[in-house]
Amino acid sequence: MLKVTVIGSGNVAQHLIKAFSKADGVSIVQVYARSAESLLHLFPQQLITTDLSGLKEADIYIIAVTDNAIAEVSAQLPFKKRLVVHTSGSVSIDALNSNNRRGVFYPLQTFSKNKEVDFNNIPICLESESAEDYELLATLANSISGNIFNVTSNQRKALHVAAVFASNFTNHMYVLANEICTEHKMPFDILKPLITETAAKVKELSPLKAQTGPAIRHDSKTLEAHLEMLTNDNQRNIYKTLTQSIQAHAEKL
Amino acid sequence: MLKVTVIGSGNVAQHLIKAFSKADGVSIVQVYARSAESLLHLFPQQLITTDLSGLKEADIYIIAVTDNAIAEVSAQLPFKKRLVVHTSGSVSIDALNSNNRRGVFYPLQTFSKNKEVDFNNIPICLESESAEDYELLATLANSISGNIFNVTSNQRKALHVAAVFASNFTNHMYVLANEICTEHKMPFDILKPLITETAAKVKELSPLKAQTGPAIRHDSKTLEAHLEMLTNDNQRNIYKTLTQSIQAHAEKL
Repeated sequence: MLKVTVIGSGNVAQHLIKAFSKADGVSIVQVYARSAESLLHLFPQQLITTDLSGLKEADIYIIAVTDNAIAEVSAQLPFKKRLVVHTSGSVSIDALNSNNRRGVFYPLQTFSKNKEVDFNNIPICLESESAEDYELLATLANSISGNIFNVTSNQRKALHVAAVFASNFTNHMYVLANEICTEHKMPFDILKPLITETAAKVKELSPLKAQTGPAIRHDSKTLEAHLEMLTNDNQRNIYKTLTQSIQAHAEKL
Repeated sequence: MLKVTVIGSGNVAQHLIKAFSKADGVSIVQVYARSAESLLHLFPQQLITTDLSGLKEADIYIIAVTDNAIAEVSAQLPFKKRLVVHTSGSVSIDALNSNNRRGVFYPLQTFSKNKEVDFNNIPICLESESAEDYELLATLANSISGNIFNVTSNQRKALHVAAVFASNFTNHMYVLANEICTEHKMPFDILKPLITETAAKVKELSPLKAQTGPAIRHDSKTLEAHLEMLTNDNQRNIYKTLTQSIQAHAEKL
């Protein structure tokens, strides 16, 4: 039985607590949170500590806090030579205090408090300082996901940037589409099948081959009509910038 | 039995031919294509005409050609007072020649030649000049989809712009994410679960509420690190533009 301690109470911490609670071969021995209330719906109060110095022994300590707090939290841990990992896509393994054995356990997914996720398909990117620790992390990752990758700190940083495009910026496209629907008294629902299909398409086709629309067709009449429809400079600026980028990428095909 | 003629041989025309071929209560009496070869895998050669003047009688003529050709094709039809519709998101109903009864049959979806789509969930936006013609179009639309909307020409234009954001620009985010993965020797596959989940989230949450990432958290350290990772001005420009837009929209929450 792999003994795990989760440090943190945010979105990633809560999703990991849920996933490990259901996993075979893993036991969460303790969770650290600045205030216990945020976790009482998920975890028994007597196993929550609000004091880092009260942390008990575990095989792996998972620091799932905001990026800027990782170094500080890892420096406050009251033990040495244990395996301590963070869950961040953009922070180097070196940010962790070297008193302990260091690693990274980065689940590449977007987590929201009110939306359940199925960990089975979530890629987990692992990094460690030794082969032994990699084995421990792989055992832990395999208990919740079938999708494990060995990724260096530098690759992980690039992956995190790629994920910002593939997820955060994509979601912002939905925000802008929703804004346009609302302005013209149409329900956002009408766009949902299109959103689903657009995401499904790139499972089978490369994104460059999946590209459709007036930009890649150089359909100047439609492009001009669209710019006239848009009601604010932010929408127009983004429309022009992305149209140019689509056309520049099409030339590479 | 509703008799339909499809005019065109591109993506939308081919997907409509496939869908109507399987639909109950609809019969495709003829298809017009500039060259028959492009449709021989879908449709019997003897029912394909390459001459608009050879069009036979039908209840509804569906012009599924590029936007710029709609007016010209509709003006060349060798009959009057029949129901003629186009399938474009961005062209007004008025672009159709007024010799005939005019309408719009706009399936709001992204169509690629090599990717099957399920019409059942595709919203079809209808417009007509009379209630009788609307009934005909609704009957046709219901034969392939359960998702029918009455949308004016002006709303449809706005919807088409919204669809560019929700689909074309979203796909371009995937293109840029793929580019970053390739630059760092990682497979695009690693991002696919994230892409699927990002699209799935907005079925349950509003896009504004679903927004995650360093921009909305105002995580300046990560934002700076990401800009340093990016390898070209196009990526950097888009990263900055969309980060600013995300932050401006968050203030509206």
